[in-house]
Amino acid sequence: CIASRSREWAHHGAPIFADLTVHEMKAVRAYLHGIPEMGLTNARSRALNKNSILLMELHLPKKHEALRALDRGHAKPPRQARVIIQFGNQAEPNITEYIVSPLPSPTSHQVKTFKGAKPVTFESRPITVVEYDHINDILNKITTKAHKLLFETTGGFSYTNCSNRCLTFSDIAPRGLDPGERRTWIMLQKFVEGYFIHPIGFEVLINHQDLDPEKWTVEKVWYNSVYFDSVEELVEKYESGEVEKLKLPDHSDDDFYSTYIPRGQINTPTDIHGPKLVEPQGHRYHIDRNFVEYAGWSFAYRVRSSAGLQVFDLRFNGERIAYEISLQEAIAFYAGDTPAAMQTKYIDAGWAMGTSTFELAPGIDCPEIATFIDLYHYFDTDKPVHHKNALCIFEMTMAMPLRRHFNSDFQGGYNFFGGLENTVLVLRTTSTVYNYDYIWDFLFYPNGVVEVKVSATGYIHATFFTPNGLHYGSKVYNYVLGNLHTHLIHYKVDLDIDGRENSFETLDLKFVNFTNPWSPKHFIVQSKLHRTEHRTERSAAFRFGKKFPRYVHFYNPNKKNKWGHQKGYRIQFNSHAHSVLPRGWREEIGISWSRYPLAVTRHKDSEATSSSIYTQNDPWEPAVSFEDYIRNNEDIVNQDLVAWVTVGFLHVPHSEDIPNTATPGNAVGFFLRPFNFFNEDPSVASKSTVIVRPDQDGKPKIQRWTPEVIGHCVTDKPFFYNGTYAGV
Amino acid sequence: CIASRSREWAHHGAPIFADLTVHEMKAVRAYLHGIPEMGLTNARSRALNKNSILLMELHLPKKHEALRALDRGHAKPPRQARVIIQFGNQAEPNITEYIVSPLPSPTSHQVKTFKGAKPVTFESRPITVVEYDHINDILNKITTKAHKLLFETTGGFSYTNCSNRCLTFSDIAPRGLDPGERRTWIMLQKFVEGYFIHPIGFEVLINHQDLDPEKWTVEKVWYNSVYFDSVEELVEKYESGEVEKLKLPDHSDDDFYSTYIPRGQINTPTDIHGPKLVEPQGHRYHIDRNFVEYAGWSFAYRVRSSAGLQVFDLRFNGERIAYEISLQEAIAFYAGDTPAAMQTKYIDAGWAMGTSTFELAPGIDCPEIATFIDLYHYFDTDKPVHHKNALCIFEMTMAMPLRRHFNSDFQGGYNFFGGLENTVLVLRTTSTVYNYDYIWDFLFYPNGVVEVKVSATGYIHATFFTPNGLHYGSKVYNYVLGNLHTHLIHYKVDLDIDGRENSFETLDLKFVNFTNPWSPKHFIVQSKLHRTEHRTERSAAFRFGKKFPRYVHFYNPNKKNKWGHQKGYRIQFNSHAHSVLPRGWREEIGISWSRYPLAVTRHKDSEATSSSIYTQNDPWEPAVSFEDYIRNNEDIVNQDLVAWVTVGFLHVPHSEDIPNTATPGNAVGFFLRPFNFFNEDPSVASKSTVIVRPDQDGKPKIQRWTPEVIGHCVTDKPFFYNGTYAGV
Ligand SMILES: [Ca+2]
Ligand SMILES: [Ca+2]
Ligand SMILES: [Ca+2]
Ligand SMILES: [Ca+2]
Ligand SMILES: [Cu+2]
Ligand SMILES: [Cu+2]
Repeated sequence: CIASRSREWAHHGAPIFADLTVHEMKAVRAYLHGIPEMGLTNARSRALNKNSILLMELHLPKKHEALRALDRGHAKPPRQARVIIQFGNQAEPNITEYIVSPLPSPTSHQVKTFKGAKPVTFESRPITVVEYDHINDILNKITTKAHKLLFETTGGFSYTNCSNRCLTFSDIAPRGLDPGERRTWIMLQKFVEGYFIHPIGFEVLINHQDLDPEKWTVEKVWYNSVYFDSVEELVEKYESGEVEKLKLPDHSDDDFYSTYIPRGQINTPTDIHGPKLVEPQGHRYHIDRNFVEYAGWSFAYRVRSSAGLQVFDLRFNGERIAYEISLQEAIAFYAGDTPAAMQTKYIDAGWAMGTSTFELAPGIDCPEIATFIDLYHYFDTDKPVHHKNALCIFEMTMAMPLRRHFNSDFQGGYNFFGGLENTVLVLRTTSTVYNYDYIWDFLFYPNGVVEVKVSATGYIHATFFTPNGLHYGSKVYNYVLGNLHTHLIHYKVDLDIDGRENSFETLDLKFVNFTNPWSPKHFIVQSKLHRTEHRTERSAAFRFGKKFPRYVHFYNPNKKNKWGHQKGYRIQFNSHAHSVLPRGWREEIGISWSRYPLAVTRHKDSEATSSSIYTQNDPWEPAVSFEDYIRNNEDIVNQDLVAWVTVGFLHVPHSEDIPNTATPGNAVGFFLRPFNFFNEDPSVASKSTVIVRPDQDGKPKIQRWTPEVIGHCVTDKPFFYNGTYAGV
Repeated sequence: CIASRSREWAHHGAPIFADLTVHEMKAVRAYLHGIPEMGLTNARSRALNKNSILLMELHLPKKHEALRALDRGHAKPPRQARVIIQFGNQAEPNITEYIVSPLPSPTSHQVKTFKGAKPVTFESRPITVVEYDHINDILNKITTKAHKLLFETTGGFSYTNCSNRCLTFSDIAPRGLDPGERRTWIMLQKFVEGYFIHPIGFEVLINHQDLDPEKWTVEKVWYNSVYFDSVEELVEKYESGEVEKLKLPDHSDDDFYSTYIPRGQINTPTDIHGPKLVEPQGHRYHIDRNFVEYAGWSFAYRVRSSAGLQVFDLRFNGERIAYEISLQEAIAFYAGDTPAAMQTKYIDAGWAMGTSTFELAPGIDCPEIATFIDLYHYFDTDKPVHHKNALCIFEMTMAMPLRRHFNSDFQGGYNFFGGLENTVLVLRTTSTVYNYDYIWDFLFYPNGVVEVKVSATGYIHATFFTPNGLHYGSKVYNYVLGNLHTHLIHYKVDLDIDGRENSFETLDLKFVNFTNPWSPKHFIVQSKLHRTEHRTERSAAFRFGKKFPRYVHFYNPNKKNKWGHQKGYRIQFNSHAHSVLPRGWREEIGISWSRYPLAVTRHKDSEATSSSIYTQNDPWEPAVSFEDYIRNNEDIVNQDLVAWVTVGFLHVPHSEDIPNTATPGNAVGFFLRPFNFFNEDPSVASKSTVIVRPDQDGKPKIQRWTPEVIGHCVTDKPFFYNGTYAGV
């Protein structure tokens, strides 16, 4: 039958999307290191002027090649790796990307370029552990010069020669003001648990562009709201009394401010465990490597080191809904009063957002019953890095019905009660991007709905408090300002509504006014559906600040459901996003995707991503520019369409962000909802439905398709329902 | 200590808000029936021209009286009942409301009026079981005349003398076009499971204003898209062939379309139970009658028969956050092509939304571990009606951290991992308003956040399909149109941020542009907080369609947190609402609250609700008009403020609304979020936090404050965390 063949082909094709194995990574490394002209050396060796591998990950085949396997059961295309090499050991240092193939035994490599063959400047590369080592060295020199100032300011903390009163630092990006620069504002913090929210009021601008760290320089210093051209100038003026001395309140190790250590009282304290999820009769989902099935759903997943979680070949009952849904970028643009605060425009793919998939704690990050899966990344390393329990998959109850109805007879009885509990499969990873922790979720509901969601937690990015800072946030500690910022997240949603050829329309309401047909002296005003077909990319690029349509609807103009409607899905936003900078203003050029809550483009293999790991360190002339994808304003009628979705929220930190931003209320995302895709709600196939009807004697008769008793851990009593509501 | 005294007074005062007991209801009834001048008779007796009790419920004391008990431990004010009496047995029938007191042994009653002493017209009363009996009688006459037509149209269904091929009906509101009218469009449906989505294409307008049902008349009939002035006219033209005969497809009892009966296939079928919630070590919340405590929270609840769920005296660690949060109204305004569809403007408080709290099924409507609580209502009855398991309270895990952070050392190890699972206490009731089921939730998070949420399920309101109907919805069955409509829900949020005197401001961002202080040839553009204090009610009434501020912030100008910020809360919307009719257009006058996603007024005991049970049947001259509350445009600085919140969504039905609208994606609401209310996140007091740090040997050392092992139903293994991510 068609459904089972479809399932077989989906299963057959899923490995196309599987991340590189350790074996493949090692083979690729060996292959490239074996090419003498490359002159590759270890990534972790101390030099900066060397050639080395920065990142490797799976390179996806062209979509039409993958579809031959997924739709027709053909052989899978050969596996390939994308490898980023930093060529620092040559006259004109550059970054070059290669496609290495075939895996697991590579024999060839070819240069991979971005759309428009834009070169990747060497200065736009992400920062590495080795470069941080050298930054540490220069900070040693700086802080040694300013030792007395730092010691007196902090009441005993120092950067070097410290035991339990140490300083550490956070570095800000972008690293400069123009393309080709690599100079970074760094702020010092007390190195205590939760150091992110312990700025001490000392910020320094270091130029680390030269590949010889001995040539690095200090360009500016900021202390107690004053700028200095050098550490020496600051120290001199500090000693001579020309600069006001800052003195932080005494440091107390009993002040748990930035820690997780429980303190304070709540009125209903308890030291027992809260409610937990159990699966009394086992899993209801199947996982075979990166292929997952649940209810009607099947999909393949992947966590790319360059940007994170992706879902491919999403089908319901064998019908494709999306070819790809994937995280592209996450940014947080800040405002503030210190140079570090003003400069902070974090573009997290450049901070290895995709590889920062640290271990998930059972019972905290995912329920105890979750299936935990390891990931491997190859970034800034000389061997693949094993991330244990970095991804989890679990089913949960939403503790609410998916549907329910009590059909009253309005006489104290009922015709029937029916209900189906709402459960959902969750696919989750996290990214800890320095201070912040993002939780990335895909939720698959049994009724054909997908929810894509990001929750924010972790430490806020905070700077030293100045009175002027109150225009940019809240004071959250004696000398700390929580700086306002906007989080924006970008997703690629390559919907393929039952095939590649799709169209896009928006639905709005317009009031109509006409004579009441049954009372001609009256008028009727009511809402009428107003459909707008968007025929070009420009007309389907919606700007922030402009009115957004009520419904955005993707449909297959060639396929109809049983009732004659074109099969479709709509995207429903759950977001409070807005734009972060005026259009075209400097760094905004690097995040042109952020102009649009929704933009729809024609699919191109060459337009695989909307951002890159290079944007952070050169947002002014970005290697990947989303705006280029819509500039040619292609026809989007009956085409392979891709929806690009921006969600986010304004975050004005407040005292309750201490110690961490909490997830409640800090989640945004979108739903993919069927809109006349099926003939009826496909969750009617669920066997978990319960129906109760009164029998001839009025006694409730229960009709169900699952075991009567769930199990002793939940309840050993069978389901019971009374139904009547009677006078007393 | 202050906290424990506050807790004691909250507990002491909670019974002020407890719904009437059965004993109190019976005493009130006996008292009123004992007053000869009232001439009260049974509500369920057949006559319409009688005097009888329609509804009784608790009448709240004035706020300042309640606060004497809640804030100072004084004696509670006497309990009172609000009683609605319909005086049909007199020359000028009217509706009068009384306050009866004191309970439980009443000795007095006095007339209660609405603001402006607007009289309640008799025609605006809700419909009763007795009136439906008479409607059934006239439908018997009508359908007997049209028996052949109905039988032929439906292939064997009839309204009378039927066994398994019966017809039933749905009635539409409002009941007319002008104040004082009581004439209702009624549509016939097949009386099968899920009859709401079985319209047969026959609609009739019945005038039932007269209190003598013998004088009721048929004013219009609609059949197959044609209007007739009488049943006789239709039947005559049907017989003579002047009207096209409609013939529905053969009815099949095997067509499960409108039922819950499982059918169809899913690719991963299963007949085992899904994941369930357990409490391995018991509840972590306390309930004492209507007083609930959880984490730092305490509140009293109530389910008023006139409009539903309410929460009172909401405190966190003894500090009041809100005096009242309560559901006011739920509406669904439709559009369509048949007279019933065009007329449908459901205003659900008029449909006994508050009393339609039918039994909750364990494991479907609430988890098996929930505490289920009975409710009693007195509406359209002669004795109190017992609703078993009508409210539930439970704690659940959100299967996600409240906060978590992995503090990498960027060398394959970590400084610490910390996490706290996110749990929430849920307070839930439902309202089944005829076809639709609303799920009303209050969620209390341990970090001082409250979420108020409504989820929609149950059957859509559907009408007979006509080609022109496609402008107003989707075809969801051979001959059925799912009509577009907008759901709007109104809440009263009487925030009292640590006291009654509060102020209100909005926060927006404005770009500022200035010379870069460390690079004078460059400019910096960044966002700056722009605060607007709203000093009057008009300036704090935000219109749909206008720009809504980024943050709406309620604060106590007299109280500061530790860091000098005024203690505040903000409301964060999760809603897709919009206005349903042009301002001032006919029925819109009855729902003037729906003009505003948010309006802020000065608290008045006389402005207790924004709607009433009378609005449905007279929206043109409503007894309660929200617009009146802001018309005097009072000063709202440092006053007792009330926020009025409208949430909702556009619902264009689609095939997946069959058999029922499903909850995923169909929930809207709002968050109350602390904004510098506390000194830090109060959930730091939770003992469920887990911290992991590497010991000297790099082995993970777990610090926790709850038992190491949860219990065998969840897992008998202690929590374990590895933390490192190493090369392989
Ligand atoms: Ca294009
Ligand atoms: Ca597509
Ligand atoms: Ca007022
Ligand atoms: Ca108030
Ligand atoms: Cu944030
Ligand atoms: Cu609806």
